[in-house]
Amino acid sequence: MSELTRTALAIEKDLLRKFDAWMASHGYDNRSEAVRDLMRSALTEAEWANPRAKVLAVLSIIYDHESHTLAQELAHIQHEDHDAILCSQHVHLDAHRCLEVILMKGTAAQLRHLADVIVATRGVRAGKLTPLSTNV
Amino acid sequence: MSELTRTALAIEKDLLRKFDAWMASHGYDNRSEAVRDLMRSALTEAEWANPRAKVLAVLSIIYDHESHTLAQELAHIQHEDHDAILCSQHVHLDAHRCLEVILMKGTAAQLRHLADVIVATRGVRAGKLTPLSTNV
Amino acid sequence: MSELTRTALAIEKDLLRKFDAWMASHGYDNRSEAVRDLMRSALTEAEWANPRAKVLAVLSIIYDHESHTLAQELAHIQHEDHDAILCSQHVHLDAHRCLEVILMKGTAAQLRHLADVIVATRGVRAGKLTPLSTNV
Amino acid sequence: MSELTRTALAIEKDLLRKFDAWMASHGYDNRSEAVRDLMRSALTEAEWANPRAKVLAVLSIIYDHESHTLAQELAHIQHEDHDAILCSQHVHLDAHRCLEVILMKGTAAQLRHLADVIVATRGVRAGKLTPLSTNV
Repeated sequence: MSELTRTALAIEKDLLRKFDAWMASHGYDNRSEAVRDLMRSALTEAEWANPRAKVLAVLSIIYDHESHTLAQELAHIQHEDHDAILCSQHVHLDAHRCLEVILMKGTAAQLRHLADVIVATRGVRAGKLTPLSTNV
Repeated sequence: MSELTRTALAIEKDLLRKFDAWMASHGYDNRSEAVRDLMRSALTEAEWANPRAKVLAVLSIIYDHESHTLAQELAHIQHEDHDAILCSQHVHLDAHRCLEVILMKGTAAQLRHLADVIVATRGVRAGKLTPLSTNV
Repeated sequence: MSELTRTALAIEKDLLRKFDAWMASHGYDNRSEAVRDLMRSALTEAEWANPRAKVLAVLSIIYDHESHTLAQELAHIQHEDHDAILCSQHVHLDAHRCLEVILMKGTAAQLRHLADVIVATRGVRAGKLTPLSTNV
Repeated sequence: MSELTRTALAIEKDLLRKFDAWMASHGYDNRSEAVRDLMRSALTEAEWANPRAKVLAVLSIIYDHESHTLAQELAHIQHEDHDAILCSQHVHLDAHRCLEVILMKGTAAQLRHLADVIVATRGVRAGKLTPLSTNV
Protein backbone atom coordinates (compact mmCIF):
# COMPACT_ATOMS: atom_id res chain seq x y z
CA MET A 1 0.00 0.00 0.00
CA SER A 2 1.45 3.35 -1.00
CA GLU A 3 1.81 6.08 1.61
CA LEU A 4 -1.34 7.92 2.62
CA THR A 5 -1.68 11.59 1.90
CA ARG A 6 -4.46 13.94 2.94
CA THR A 7 -6.63 15.88 0.55
CA ALA A 8 -9.28 18.37 1.59
CA LEU A 9 -12.43 18.39 -0.50
CA ALA A 10 -15.31 20.85 -0.62
CA ILE A 11 -18.61 19.00 -0.41
CA GLU A 12 -22.11 20.38 0.09
CA LYS A 13 -23.24 19.77 3.68
CA ASP A 14 -26.39 18.10 2.47
CA LEU A 15 -24.52 15.75 0.13
CA LEU A 16 -22.03 14.83 2.84
CA ARG A 17 -24.84 14.03 5.27
CA LYS A 18 -26.49 11.73 2.70
CA PHE A 19 -23.18 10.14 1.80
CA ASP A 20 -22.50 9.39 5.47
CA ALA A 21 -25.87 7.62 5.69
CA TRP A 22 -25.10 5.65 2.51
CA MET A 23 -21.69 4.67 3.95
CA ALA A 24 -23.21 3.43 7.17
CA SER A 25 -25.83 1.35 5.39
CA HIS A 26 -23.14 -0.16 3.16
CA GLY A 27 -20.95 -1.20 6.06
CA TYR A 28 -18.27 1.53 5.92
CA ASP A 29 -17.13 3.15 9.16
CA ASN A 30 -14.73 5.50 7.43
CA ARG A 31 -15.34 8.25 4.87
CA SER A 32 -11.86 7.99 3.34
CA GLU A 33 -12.23 4.26 2.76
CA ALA A 34 -15.61 4.75 1.07
CA VAL A 35 -14.29 7.48 -1.24
CA ARG A 36 -11.18 5.45 -2.10
CA ASP A 37 -13.45 2.57 -3.16
CA LEU A 38 -15.48 4.88 -5.43
CA MET A 39 -12.25 6.17 -6.97
CA ARG A 40 -10.89 2.68 -7.61
CA SER A 41 -14.13 1.61 -9.16
CA ALA A 42 -14.06 4.60 -11.57
CA LEU A 43 -10.42 3.79 -12.46
CA THR A 44 -11.22 0.14 -13.20
CA GLU A 45 -14.09 1.13 -15.48
CA ALA A 46 -11.82 3.52 -17.38
CA GLU A 47 -9.08 0.89 -17.77
CA TRP A 48 -11.51 -1.53 -19.42
CA ALA A 49 -12.45 1.12 -22.00
CA ASN A 50 -8.96 0.61 -23.46
CA PRO A 51 -8.81 -2.78 -25.25
CA ARG A 52 -5.01 -2.97 -24.79
CA ALA A 53 -4.96 -2.30 -21.06
CA LYS A 54 -3.56 -5.14 -18.94
CA VAL A 55 -6.39 -6.12 -16.65
CA LEU A 56 -7.76 -8.83 -14.41
CA ALA A 57 -11.13 -10.54 -14.69
CA VAL A 58 -13.29 -13.23 -13.15
CA LEU A 59 -15.47 -15.28 -15.46
CA SER A 60 -18.35 -17.08 -13.74
CA ILE A 61 -20.13 -19.77 -15.72
CA ILE A 62 -22.90 -22.23 -14.97
CA TYR A 63 -22.97 -25.39 -17.06
CA ASP A 64 -24.40 -28.88 -17.34
CA HIS A 65 -21.76 -31.34 -16.28
CA GLU A 66 -23.46 -34.24 -18.01
CA SER A 67 -21.80 -33.73 -21.33
CA HIS A 68 -18.27 -35.13 -21.18
CA THR A 69 -17.38 -33.27 -24.34
CA LEU A 70 -18.19 -29.92 -22.72
CA ALA A 71 -15.69 -30.36 -19.89
CA GLN A 72 -13.09 -31.37 -22.48
CA GLU A 73 -13.97 -28.45 -24.71
CA LEU A 74 -13.72 -25.96 -21.83
CA ALA A 75 -10.40 -27.43 -20.76
CA HIS A 76 -9.18 -27.21 -24.36
CA ILE A 77 -10.16 -23.55 -24.73
CA GLN A 78 -8.48 -22.69 -21.44
CA HIS A 79 -5.28 -24.52 -22.40
CA GLU A 80 -5.06 -22.68 -25.70
CA ASP A 81 -5.06 -19.42 -23.75
CA HIS A 82 -3.26 -20.82 -20.72
CA ASP A 83 -1.16 -17.68 -20.31
CA ALA A 84 -4.36 -15.75 -19.58
CA ILE A 85 -5.88 -18.25 -17.13
CA LEU A 86 -4.64 -17.96 -13.55
CA CYS A 87 -6.73 -20.72 -12.04
CA SER A 88 -10.29 -21.88 -11.71
CA GLN A 89 -12.64 -23.23 -9.10
CA HIS A 90 -15.55 -25.58 -9.43
CA VAL A 91 -18.72 -26.18 -7.38
CA HIS A 92 -21.30 -28.94 -7.93
CA LEU A 93 -24.53 -26.98 -7.60
CA ASP A 94 -26.92 -29.90 -7.91
CA ALA A 95 -27.24 -33.21 -9.73
CA HIS A 96 -26.78 -31.51 -13.09
CA ARG A 97 -25.23 -28.11 -12.84
CA CYS A 98 -21.78 -26.81 -12.05
CA LEU A 99 -20.59 -23.34 -11.19
CA GLU A 100 -17.08 -22.64 -12.43
CA VAL A 101 -15.18 -19.47 -11.66
CA ILE A 102 -12.16 -18.73 -13.83
CA LEU A 103 -9.60 -16.08 -12.85
CA MET A 104 -7.96 -14.43 -15.86
CA LYS A 105 -5.23 -11.87 -16.54
CA GLY A 106 -4.45 -10.28 -19.90
CA THR A 107 -5.50 -7.40 -22.12
CA ALA A 108 -9.13 -6.26 -21.94
CA ALA A 109 -9.66 -7.34 -25.56
CA GLN A 110 -8.17 -10.79 -24.97
CA LEU A 111 -10.21 -11.48 -21.83
CA ARG A 112 -13.44 -10.30 -23.43
CA HIS A 113 -12.84 -12.57 -26.43
CA LEU A 114 -11.90 -15.56 -24.29
CA ALA A 115 -15.03 -15.04 -22.18
CA ASP A 116 -17.19 -14.81 -25.32
CA VAL A 117 -15.82 -18.09 -26.63
CA ILE A 118 -16.38 -19.89 -23.32
CA VAL A 119 -19.87 -18.49 -22.73
CA ALA A 120 -20.94 -19.33 -26.30
CA THR A 121 -19.92 -22.98 -25.92
CA ARG A 122 -22.97 -25.25 -26.11
CA GLY A 123 -23.91 -26.49 -22.65
CA VAL A 124 -22.74 -23.34 -20.89
CA ARG A 125 -26.04 -22.03 -19.55
CA ALA A 126 -24.98 -18.66 -18.25
CA GLY A 127 -21.80 -16.63 -18.03
CA LYS A 128 -20.74 -13.29 -16.59
CA LEU A 129 -17.43 -11.52 -17.00
CA THR A 130 -16.49 -9.36 -14.00
CA PRO A 131 -13.91 -6.69 -14.89
CA LEU A 132 -11.21 -6.03 -12.29
CA SER A 133 -7.94 -4.16 -12.26
CA THR A 134 -4.42 -5.18 -11.24
CA ASN A 135 -3.66 -1.58 -10.83
CA VAL A 136 -5.72 -0.09 -8.02
CA MET B 1 -27.17 24.24 -3.62
CA SER B 2 -26.55 23.63 0.05
CA GLU B 3 -23.58 25.25 1.76
CA LEU B 4 -20.16 23.73 1.10
CA THR B 5 -18.20 22.18 3.92
CA ARG B 6 -14.66 20.83 3.85
CA THR B 7 -13.72 17.26 4.66
CA ALA B 8 -10.17 15.94 4.74
CA LEU B 9 -9.68 12.44 3.44
CA ALA B 10 -6.71 10.09 3.67
CA ILE B 11 -5.92 8.67 0.23
CA GLU B 12 -2.89 6.66 -0.90
CA LYS B 13 -0.53 8.90 -2.91
CA ASP B 14 -0.53 6.44 -5.75
CA LEU B 15 -4.33 6.25 -5.90
CA LEU B 16 -4.64 10.02 -5.79
CA ARG B 17 -2.19 10.40 -8.66
CA LYS B 18 -4.17 7.93 -10.78
CA PHE B 19 -7.46 9.55 -9.83
CA ASP B 20 -6.11 12.95 -10.90
CA ALA B 21 -5.21 11.48 -14.31
CA TRP B 22 -8.68 9.91 -14.60
CA MET B 23 -10.28 13.27 -13.69
CA ALA B 24 -8.31 15.11 -16.34
CA SER B 25 -9.17 12.61 -19.06
CA HIS B 26 -12.86 12.83 -18.08
CA GLY B 27 -12.98 16.60 -18.28
CA TYR B 28 -12.86 17.51 -14.59
CA ASP B 29 -10.60 20.33 -13.45
CA ASN B 30 -11.49 19.94 -9.80
CA ARG B 31 -11.02 17.00 -7.43
CA SER B 32 -13.96 17.96 -5.20
CA GLU B 33 -16.33 18.12 -8.16
CA ALA B 34 -15.20 14.69 -9.35
CA VAL B 35 -15.65 13.10 -5.92
CA ARG B 36 -19.05 14.74 -5.44
CA ASP B 37 -20.17 13.19 -8.74
CA LEU B 38 -19.03 9.72 -7.62
CA MET B 39 -20.91 10.19 -4.33
CA ARG B 40 -24.12 11.27 -6.06
CA SER B 41 -23.94 8.36 -8.43
CA ALA B 42 -23.59 5.91 -5.51
CA LEU B 43 -26.56 7.56 -3.77
CA THR B 44 -28.75 7.31 -6.87
CA GLU B 45 -27.98 3.62 -7.26
CA ALA B 46 -28.87 2.99 -3.61
CA GLU B 47 -32.15 4.92 -3.93
CA TRP B 48 -33.28 2.72 -6.83
CA ALA B 49 -32.69 -0.41 -4.73
CA ASN B 50 -35.73 0.66 -2.68
CA PRO B 51 -38.92 0.10 -4.75
CA ARG B 52 -40.81 2.76 -2.77
CA ALA B 53 -38.22 5.54 -3.14
CA LYS B 54 -39.43 8.63 -5.00
CA VAL B 55 -37.15 8.90 -7.99
CA LEU B 56 -36.74 10.39 -11.42
CA ALA B 57 -36.12 8.53 -14.68
CA VAL B 58 -35.66 9.04 -18.38
CA LEU B 59 -37.10 6.39 -20.68
CA SER B 60 -35.62 6.39 -24.19
CA ILE B 61 -37.44 4.37 -26.83
CA ILE B 62 -37.00 3.83 -30.55
CA TYR B 63 -40.08 2.87 -32.51
CA ASP B 64 -41.58 2.54 -35.97
CA HIS B 65 -43.84 5.48 -36.56
CA GLU B 66 -45.71 3.73 -39.34
CA SER B 67 -48.24 2.07 -37.15
CA HIS B 68 -50.90 4.62 -36.19
CA THR B 69 -52.11 2.34 -33.46
CA LEU B 70 -48.71 2.36 -31.76
CA ALA B 71 -48.65 6.13 -31.31
CA GLN B 72 -52.19 5.92 -29.92
CA GLU B 73 -51.28 3.05 -27.65
CA LEU B 74 -48.21 4.85 -26.29
CA ALA B 75 -50.26 7.99 -25.70
CA HIS B 76 -52.90 5.92 -23.95
CA ILE B 77 -50.39 4.24 -21.63
CA GLN B 78 -48.83 7.57 -20.77
CA HIS B 79 -52.21 9.16 -20.04
CA GLU B 80 -53.18 6.34 -17.69
CA ASP B 81 -50.07 7.12 -15.67
CA HIS B 82 -50.09 10.84 -16.40
CA ASP B 83 -49.10 11.73 -12.86
CA ALA B 84 -45.79 9.95 -13.45
CA ILE B 85 -45.03 11.48 -16.87
CA LEU B 86 -43.42 14.91 -16.78
CA CYS B 87 -43.05 15.44 -20.52
CA SER B 88 -41.64 13.81 -23.60
CA GLN B 89 -39.65 14.72 -26.66
CA HIS B 90 -39.70 13.22 -30.11
CA VAL B 91 -37.14 13.06 -32.95
CA HIS B 92 -37.75 11.68 -36.45
CA LEU B 93 -34.62 9.57 -36.95
CA ASP B 94 -35.28 8.52 -40.53
CA ALA B 95 -38.17 7.64 -42.82
CA HIS B 96 -39.36 4.96 -40.43
CA ARG B 97 -38.01 5.34 -36.96
CA CYS B 98 -38.62 7.73 -34.11
CA LEU B 99 -36.67 8.39 -30.95
CA GLU B 100 -38.87 9.36 -28.03
CA VAL B 101 -37.54 10.41 -24.66
CA ILE B 102 -39.99 10.37 -21.77
CA LEU B 103 -39.21 12.09 -18.46
CA MET B 104 -40.85 10.40 -15.49
CA LYS B 105 -41.19 10.94 -11.73
CA GLY B 106 -42.63 8.48 -9.23
CA THR B 107 -41.62 5.50 -7.11
CA ALA B 108 -38.89 3.23 -8.45
CA ALA B 109 -41.38 0.34 -8.70
CA GLN B 110 -43.93 2.46 -10.61
CA LEU B 111 -41.38 3.81 -13.09
CA ARG B 112 -39.88 0.37 -13.73
CA HIS B 113 -43.34 -1.08 -14.38
CA LEU B 114 -44.38 1.79 -16.64
CA ALA B 115 -41.14 1.43 -18.61
CA ASP B 116 -41.68 -2.34 -18.95
CA VAL B 117 -45.18 -1.82 -20.34
CA ILE B 118 -44.01 0.80 -22.85
CA VAL B 119 -40.94 -1.15 -23.99
CA ALA B 120 -42.97 -4.35 -24.39
CA THR B 121 -45.50 -2.67 -26.68
CA ARG B 122 -45.35 -4.14 -30.19
CA GLY B 123 -43.53 -1.78 -32.54
CA VAL B 124 -41.22 -0.39 -29.86
CA ARG B 125 -37.86 -1.62 -31.13
CA ALA B 126 -35.65 -0.71 -28.22
CA GLY B 127 -36.02 0.91 -24.85
CA LYS B 128 -33.73 1.92 -22.01
CA LEU B 129 -34.67 3.22 -18.58
CA THR B 130 -32.12 5.62 -17.10
CA PRO B 131 -32.41 5.88 -13.30
CA LEU B 132 -31.94 9.35 -11.83
CA SER B 133 -32.56 10.93 -8.46
CA THR B 134 -34.46 14.05 -7.42
CA ASN B 135 -32.47 14.01 -4.32
CA VAL B 136 -28.80 14.61 -5.01
CA MET C 1 -39.69 -2.30 -40.68
CA SER C 2 -38.05 -5.01 -42.74
CA GLU C 3 -40.06 -8.08 -43.74
CA LEU C 4 -40.65 -10.70 -41.05
CA THR C 5 -39.20 -14.15 -41.42
CA ARG C 6 -39.73 -17.17 -39.18
CA THR C 7 -36.97 -18.99 -37.37
CA ALA C 8 -37.47 -22.12 -35.30
CA LEU C 9 -35.40 -22.37 -32.16
CA ALA C 10 -34.75 -25.27 -29.82
CA ILE C 11 -35.32 -24.20 -26.23
CA GLU C 12 -35.50 -26.33 -23.09
CA LYS C 13 -39.15 -26.68 -21.97
CA ASP C 14 -38.27 -25.48 -18.54
CA LEU C 15 -36.45 -22.38 -19.81
CA LEU C 16 -39.30 -21.53 -22.16
CA ARG C 17 -41.83 -21.81 -19.33
CA LYS C 18 -39.77 -19.45 -17.18
CA PHE C 19 -39.23 -17.06 -20.07
CA ASP C 20 -42.99 -16.94 -20.71
CA ALA C 21 -43.53 -15.97 -17.07
CA TRP C 22 -40.82 -13.29 -17.33
CA MET C 23 -42.44 -11.95 -20.51
CA ALA C 24 -45.84 -11.72 -18.89
CA SER C 25 -44.50 -9.89 -15.84
CA HIS C 26 -42.63 -7.47 -18.10
CA GLY C 27 -45.68 -6.59 -20.16
CA TYR C 28 -45.04 -8.65 -23.30
CA ASP C 29 -47.89 -10.62 -24.85
CA ASN C 30 -45.73 -12.06 -27.61
CA ARG C 31 -42.66 -14.29 -27.46
CA SER C 32 -41.23 -13.05 -30.76
CA GLU C 33 -41.44 -9.43 -29.65
CA ALA C 34 -39.67 -10.23 -26.39
CA VAL C 35 -36.85 -12.12 -28.14
CA ARG C 36 -36.45 -9.39 -30.75
CA ASP C 37 -35.99 -6.87 -27.93
CA LEU C 38 -33.28 -9.03 -26.31
CA MET C 39 -31.53 -9.32 -29.70
CA ARG C 40 -31.62 -5.58 -30.32
CA SER C 41 -30.30 -4.87 -26.87
CA ALA C 42 -27.34 -7.25 -27.45
CA LEU C 43 -26.65 -5.57 -30.82
CA THR C 44 -26.67 -2.08 -29.30
CA GLU C 45 -24.21 -3.13 -26.61
CA ALA C 46 -21.86 -4.60 -29.23
CA GLU C 47 -22.05 -1.45 -31.39
CA TRP C 48 -20.91 0.71 -28.48
CA ALA C 49 -17.84 -1.51 -27.99
CA ASN C 50 -16.55 -0.03 -31.27
CA PRO C 51 -15.46 3.61 -30.69
CA ARG C 52 -15.97 4.47 -34.38
CA ALA C 53 -19.51 3.08 -34.68
CA LYS C 54 -22.18 5.66 -35.56
CA VAL C 55 -24.57 5.58 -32.66
CA LEU C 56 -27.31 7.46 -30.85
CA ALA C 57 -27.36 8.48 -27.21
CA VAL C 58 -29.40 10.30 -24.62
CA LEU C 59 -27.53 12.31 -22.01
CA SER C 60 -29.57 13.10 -18.88
CA ILE C 61 -28.15 15.70 -16.54
CA ILE C 62 -29.36 17.37 -13.36
CA TYR C 63 -27.95 20.79 -12.59
CA ASP C 64 -28.36 23.89 -10.49
CA HIS C 65 -29.93 26.58 -12.60
CA GLU C 66 -28.79 29.35 -10.31
CA SER C 67 -25.46 29.87 -11.92
CA HIS C 68 -25.90 31.91 -15.11
CA THR C 69 -22.46 30.93 -16.25
CA LEU C 70 -23.35 27.23 -16.17
CA ALA C 71 -26.25 27.60 -18.62
CA GLN C 72 -23.94 29.60 -20.88
CA GLU C 73 -21.15 27.09 -20.55
CA LEU C 74 -23.45 24.17 -21.37
CA ALA C 75 -24.84 26.03 -24.38
CA HIS C 76 -21.29 26.79 -25.49
CA ILE C 77 -20.16 23.15 -25.25
CA GLN C 78 -23.21 21.99 -27.16
CA HIS C 79 -22.68 24.59 -29.91
CA GLU C 80 -19.08 23.54 -30.38
CA ASP C 81 -20.32 20.02 -31.09
CA HIS C 82 -23.60 21.11 -32.67
CA ASP C 83 -23.39 18.45 -35.37
CA ALA C 84 -23.67 15.81 -32.63
CA ILE C 85 -26.58 17.41 -30.74
CA LEU C 86 -30.02 16.66 -32.13
CA CYS C 87 -32.06 18.59 -29.59
CA SER C 88 -32.59 18.92 -25.88
CA GLN C 89 -35.40 19.21 -23.39
CA HIS C 90 -35.53 20.94 -20.07
CA VAL C 91 -37.63 20.47 -16.92
CA HIS C 92 -37.61 22.69 -13.82
CA LEU C 93 -37.54 20.11 -11.06
CA ASP C 94 -37.79 22.49 -8.14
CA ALA C 95 -36.68 25.96 -7.09
CA HIS C 96 -33.04 25.10 -7.77
CA ARG C 97 -32.60 22.11 -9.97
CA CYS C 98 -33.15 21.40 -13.64
CA LEU C 99 -33.31 18.13 -15.53
CA GLU C 100 -31.98 18.43 -19.06
CA VAL C 101 -32.11 15.62 -21.58
CA ILE C 102 -29.85 15.96 -24.62
CA LEU C 103 -30.30 13.74 -27.69
CA MET C 104 -27.04 13.08 -29.51
CA LYS C 105 -25.88 11.31 -32.67
CA GLY C 106 -22.27 10.60 -33.66
CA THR C 107 -19.51 8.08 -33.09
CA ALA C 108 -19.42 6.23 -29.79
CA ALA C 109 -16.09 7.88 -28.92
CA GLN C 110 -17.38 11.38 -29.73
CA LEU C 111 -20.58 10.98 -27.68
CA ARG C 112 -18.73 9.52 -24.70
CA HIS C 113 -16.26 12.41 -24.74
CA LEU C 114 -18.97 15.05 -25.15
CA ALA C 115 -20.90 13.50 -22.26
CA ASP C 116 -17.76 13.46 -20.08
CA VAL C 117 -17.15 17.16 -20.72
CA ILE C 118 -20.75 18.11 -19.93
CA VAL C 119 -21.02 15.94 -16.80
CA ALA C 120 -17.68 17.24 -15.49
CA THR C 121 -18.79 20.85 -15.76
CA ARG C 122 -19.05 22.47 -12.33
CA GLY C 123 -22.68 22.78 -11.26
CA VAL C 124 -23.79 19.64 -13.10
CA ARG C 125 -24.81 17.45 -10.17
CA ALA C 126 -25.41 14.16 -11.94
CA GLY C 127 -25.25 12.82 -15.46
CA LYS C 128 -25.98 9.56 -17.20
CA LEU C 129 -25.26 8.61 -20.79
CA THR C 130 -27.76 6.13 -22.23
CA PRO C 131 -26.36 4.25 -25.25
CA LEU C 132 -28.80 3.66 -28.13
CA SER C 133 -28.48 2.49 -31.71
CA THR C 134 -29.72 3.97 -34.98
CA ASN C 135 -29.36 0.60 -36.44
CA VAL C 136 -31.78 -1.85 -34.83
CA MET D 1 -31.08 -30.27 -18.77
CA SER D 2 -34.82 -30.32 -19.37
CA GLU D 3 -36.16 -31.63 -22.67
CA LEU D 4 -35.83 -29.36 -25.68
CA THR D 5 -38.91 -28.04 -27.40
CA ARG D 6 -39.12 -26.01 -30.59
CA THR D 7 -40.65 -22.57 -30.83
CA ALA D 8 -41.04 -20.62 -34.05
CA LEU D 9 -40.46 -16.89 -33.79
CA ALA D 10 -41.19 -14.10 -36.25
CA ILE D 11 -38.12 -11.90 -36.63
CA GLU D 12 -37.44 -9.14 -39.17
CA LYS D 13 -35.04 -10.41 -41.86
CA ASP D 14 -32.77 -7.49 -41.28
CA LEU D 15 -32.62 -8.02 -37.49
CA LEU D 16 -31.96 -11.73 -37.94
CA ARG D 17 -29.08 -11.03 -40.34
CA LYS D 18 -27.51 -8.62 -37.84
CA PHE D 19 -28.07 -11.02 -34.97
CA ASP D 20 -26.34 -13.81 -36.93
CA ALA D 21 -23.32 -11.53 -37.41
CA TRP D 22 -23.32 -10.68 -33.69
CA MET D 23 -23.51 -14.39 -32.82
CA ALA D 24 -20.57 -15.23 -35.03
CA SER D 25 -18.41 -12.47 -33.60
CA HIS D 26 -19.29 -13.61 -30.07
CA GLY D 27 -18.32 -17.22 -30.71
CA TYR D 28 -21.78 -18.81 -31.12
CA ASP D 29 -22.35 -21.29 -33.92
CA ASN D 30 -25.98 -21.82 -33.08
CA ARG D 31 -28.89 -19.37 -33.03
CA SER D 32 -30.87 -21.32 -30.41
CA GLU D 33 -27.91 -21.36 -28.03
CA ALA D 34 -27.45 -17.60 -28.41
CA VAL D 35 -31.14 -16.86 -27.77
CA ARG D 36 -31.25 -19.21 -24.78
CA ASP D 37 -28.33 -17.29 -23.27
CA LEU D 38 -30.14 -13.96 -23.73
CA MET D 39 -33.24 -15.43 -22.10
CA ARG D 40 -31.30 -16.79 -19.11
CA SER D 41 -29.58 -13.48 -18.64
CA ALA D 42 -32.94 -11.65 -18.58
CA LEU D 43 -34.28 -14.17 -16.05
CA THR D 44 -31.29 -13.77 -13.75
CA GLU D 45 -31.65 -9.99 -13.78
CA ALA D 46 -35.35 -10.29 -12.90
CA GLU D 47 -34.64 -12.74 -10.05
CA TRP D 48 -32.22 -10.29 -8.42
CA ALA D 49 -34.92 -7.58 -8.44
CA ASN D 50 -36.68 -9.63 -5.73
CA PRO D 51 -34.74 -9.33 -2.44
CA ARG D 52 -36.15 -12.65 -1.19
CA ALA D 53 -35.25 -14.71 -4.25
CA LYS D 54 -32.79 -17.56 -3.61
CA VAL D 55 -29.82 -16.77 -5.80
CA LEU D 56 -26.15 -17.44 -6.39
CA ALA D 57 -23.33 -14.88 -6.54
CA VAL D 58 -19.61 -14.53 -6.95
CA LEU D 59 -17.88 -11.82 -4.94
CA SER D 60 -14.45 -10.83 -6.27
CA ILE D 61 -12.26 -8.75 -4.00
CA ILE D 62 -8.73 -7.40 -4.20
CA TYR D 63 -6.98 -6.71 -0.92
CA ASP D 64 -3.64 -6.03 0.72
CA HIS D 65 -2.47 -9.17 2.41
CA GLU D 66 -0.06 -7.33 4.66
CA SER D 67 -2.50 -6.68 7.40
CA HIS D 68 -2.93 -9.86 9.45
CA THR D 69 -6.05 -8.45 11.00
CA LEU D 70 -7.74 -8.12 7.60
CA ALA D 71 -7.41 -11.82 6.78
CA GLN D 72 -8.80 -12.59 10.24
CA GLU D 73 -11.60 -10.10 9.84
CA LEU D 74 -12.60 -11.48 6.43
CA ALA D 75 -12.53 -15.04 7.78
CA HIS D 76 -14.64 -13.92 10.74
CA ILE D 77 -17.28 -12.27 8.53
CA GLN D 78 -17.47 -15.33 6.31
CA HIS D 79 -17.82 -17.67 9.28
CA GLU D 80 -20.67 -15.63 10.71
CA ASP D 81 -22.52 -16.14 7.45
CA HIS D 82 -21.06 -19.59 6.74
CA ASP D 83 -24.36 -20.93 5.48
CA ALA D 84 -24.16 -18.44 2.62
CA ILE D 85 -20.53 -19.08 1.69
CA LEU D 86 -19.93 -22.07 -0.58
CA CYS D 87 -16.18 -21.75 -0.92
CA SER D 88 -13.49 -19.29 -1.88
CA GLN D 89 -10.31 -19.15 -3.90
CA HIS D 90 -7.24 -17.05 -3.45
CA VAL D 91 -4.51 -15.81 -5.82
CA HIS D 92 -1.35 -13.91 -4.83
CA LEU D 93 -1.31 -11.16 -7.46
CA ASP D 94 1.99 -9.59 -6.48
CA ALA D 95 4.08 -8.88 -3.41
CA HIS D 96 1.21 -7.01 -1.77
CA ARG D 97 -2.11 -7.80 -3.29
CA CYS D 98 -4.43 -10.79 -3.26
CA LEU D 99 -7.43 -11.61 -5.41
CA GLU D 100 -10.05 -13.58 -3.56
CA VAL D 101 -13.17 -14.98 -5.17
CA ILE D 102 -16.00 -16.02 -2.86
CA LEU D 103 -18.91 -18.15 -4.09
CA MET D 104 -22.14 -17.45 -2.24
CA LYS D 105 -25.70 -18.79 -2.14
CA GLY D 106 -28.63 -17.21 -0.33
CA THR D 107 -31.32 -14.58 -0.78
CA ALA D 108 -30.49 -11.60 -2.97
CA ALA D 109 -30.80 -9.28 0.05
CA GLN D 110 -28.50 -11.44 2.19
CA LEU D 111 -25.79 -11.73 -0.48
CA ARG D 112 -25.88 -8.01 -1.24
CA HIS D 113 -25.52 -7.18 2.44
CA LEU D 114 -22.71 -9.69 2.97
CA ALA D 115 -20.88 -8.30 -0.06
CA ASP D 116 -21.31 -4.73 1.24
CA VAL D 117 -19.81 -5.67 4.59
CA ILE D 118 -16.82 -7.44 3.02
CA VAL D 119 -16.12 -4.73 0.44
CA ALA D 120 -16.36 -1.99 3.08
CA THR D 121 -13.74 -3.65 5.29
CA ARG D 122 -10.61 -1.53 5.55
CA GLY D 123 -7.84 -2.95 3.38
CA VAL D 124 -10.21 -4.36 0.76
CA ARG D 125 -9.23 -2.23 -2.24
CA ALA D 126 -11.92 -3.24 -4.69
CA GLY D 127 -14.91 -5.54 -4.78
CA LYS D 128 -17.50 -6.60 -7.31
CA LEU D 129 -20.60 -8.71 -6.76
CA THR D 130 -21.58 -10.79 -9.79
CA PRO D 131 -25.25 -11.86 -9.68
CA LEU D 132 -26.00 -15.38 -10.89
CA SER D 133 -28.98 -17.70 -10.71
CA THR D 134 -29.35 -21.27 -9.48
CA ASN D 135 -32.42 -21.47 -11.53
CA VAL D 136 -31.61 -21.15 -15.24
